[in-house]
Amino acid sequence: MPTQEEVKKALDSVLVPGVKRSLVKLNLVKDISLNEEKLDITLFNAALMEGTRAWLTAKVKETAAKMNGVKDVNVIFAEAKPKELNNVKNVIAIMSGKGGVGKSVVSSLTAITLRRQGYEVGILDADITGPSIPKMFGVSGPPAAAESGMLPVSSNSGIGVMSVNLLLPTEDDAVIWRGPLIGHMITQFWEEVLWGNLDYLIVDLPPGTADAPLTVMQQLPISGIIIVFTPQSLTAMVVRKAIKMAKQMQKPILGVVENMSYLYVPEIKKKIEIFGKSRAEGMAQSAGAPLLGQLPLDPELVKLCDEGNIERYNAEAYDTFSKTLSSVLANKNH
Amino acid sequence: MPTQEEVKKALDSVLVPGVKRSLVKLNLVKDISLNEEKLDITLFNAALMEGTRAWLTAKVKETAAKMNGVKDVNVIFAEAKPKELNNVKNVIAIMSGKGGVGKSVVSSLTAITLRRQGYEVGILDADITGPSIPKMFGVSGPPAAAESGMLPVSSNSGIGVMSVNLLLPTEDDAVIWRGPLIGHMITQFWEEVLWGNLDYLIVDLPPGTADAPLTVMQQLPISGIIIVFTPQSLTAMVVRKAIKMAKQMQKPILGVVENMSYLYVPEIKKKIEIFGKSRAEGMAQSAGAPLLGQLPLDPELVKLCDEGNIERYNAEAYDTFSKTLSSVLANKNH
Repeated sequence: MPTQEEVKKALDSVLVPGVKRSLVKLNLVKDISLNEEKLDITLFNAALMEGTRAWLTAKVKETAAKMNGVKDVNVIFAEAKPKELNNVKNVIAIMSGKGGVGKSVVSSLTAITLRRQGYEVGILDADITGPSIPKMFGVSGPPAAAESGMLPVSSNSGIGVMSVNLLLPTEDDAVIWRGPLIGHMITQFWEEVLWGNLDYLIVDLPPGTADAPLTVMQQLPISGIIIVFTPQSLTAMVVRKAIKMAKQMQKPILGVVENMSYLYVPEIKKKIEIFGKSRAEGMAQSAGAPLLGQLPLDPELVKLCDEGNIERYNAEAYDTFSKTLSSVLANKNH
Repeated sequence: MPTQEEVKKALDSVLVPGVKRSLVKLNLVKDISLNEEKLDITLFNAALMEGTRAWLTAKVKETAAKMNGVKDVNVIFAEAKPKELNNVKNVIAIMSGKGGVGKSVVSSLTAITLRRQGYEVGILDADITGPSIPKMFGVSGPPAAAESGMLPVSSNSGIGVMSVNLLLPTEDDAVIWRGPLIGHMITQFWEEVLWGNLDYLIVDLPPGTADAPLTVMQQLPISGIIIVFTPQSLTAMVVRKAIKMAKQMQKPILGVVENMSYLYVPEIKKKIEIFGKSRAEGMAQSAGAPLLGQLPLDPELVKLCDEGNIERYNAEAYDTFSKTLSSVLANKNH
């Protein structure tokens, strides 16, 4: 007879259709009980369509039956809600206050860095009226959904994504909503999406200091905030508003990222500071947090984002960001 | 004895302190009545502090007394609210949906173009959580205010500006409000600010399609919308949401502006398309409106904005935008 651990390990190979993550990583295995040669497996029924449950039953039976000493496999479902099953270790919000500075790019690069290190990662796109994440990762909807909740859509490298753009009939449909509805949707993305076991959930905030950031800071257990800015003085002013908001709401700032820091022109082998001199030091000081990186305006990155291939990005400045971020997170978790 | 018209002309030289615009242009002259050698001038009391009223009384008396045939001048005040006095011929909203594409720059350049042509122009900064206009024009607050309302702050060239940043103790204070409060503040900027007689009020919208744009479209008599975008595909997707919103709310789109279209590098005499190939044609088509201009990423403009000197800007691409805009507006008003 196999042990519970051995059965669990076997079930980790069963990927839930739609989200392409395993039963175990989604925290859907409730109970494994072995009685003589009979194996009872209880799965949680959350965010699973009827067809998915049938498919999972068959797949689990097939997988378990292959184990030595197992004669009979019984699969039972127990009702549950996603929020009872979600186990998210760290929630990191990417914030700026200012629009168009690259919050979504930094959210994505943060998620990609952590995923490349083998962590379980999700991205909650809290920019309800201007969602960019699905396009950057080349994922599209609709997500698998049942009455009890929704499953994120997986990126190529296995990052779970949830965004309002996955739910819209066409990607350029407008969500013309007042604040309370926007706050409600963000709460739903947190409570009614089956994120399962995650090491990191990255929350991409919209510009401003209104409903969406407020909801995220009040309703989600934020472990830290990353602030994004550009060298423009005008941007710096608005970004300092976001820093003040984070401090007022007593959320720790993990670090700051300067984006569009410069443009490298290979023809003249020169960096042009289009938006002015770097403000990295000043902003790190305002935030009371380390500088995680200075990312250039990179036409290659623009192209990858537009093609939905941001996961293929590699560049020197990204590496530096990636290393600094990892060491900051490692320090924090010790 | 002078005629009413002559008295009115003389009063046009009396500038209201704080806003630096004339009594006549602010629509504050209610009545001029001439009786033998006695002149009764009735002014509206709206958004005027007590000290300002006393100063105006003295100044009006001094001005009118200089006219031939006037022996006695009497100044009376009649209570009024700004919204009863405002007479705004055209309200143009600058919109994008996407943040950081240069809505505030386009708002400012639109206002500057019209002001240079001699029109009376105001800018209502509807970006409550990320206001950029005051800094670009180098104006600061607080605005002159009384119980009955507020006066805009005038720029160097005489553009009236109202923005939440003029009301904050320090410019980087955060406005952490939910949507309804933001909508309320925009309504106040429209109803409780004494704009007076304006040919054009330019409304700088925040990113998104939520509370602020919704309030502006529902509460203000929008004559037209200008859509701003950049060549990035990701931006285009979000901007199309704003176009859909404008169409759903049946507001006419006057034209589209491509910003950050390219960067000119003088060392190699080349235009670099940092954000990809121009999407001007496609966006004009989506919007069903003419292309008003393609503005480059211009480090000189960035510098002027950061210094508060945007009114000094002059460049070829700006001229083209300016001419096209003027001809579109001229056609519309015929």
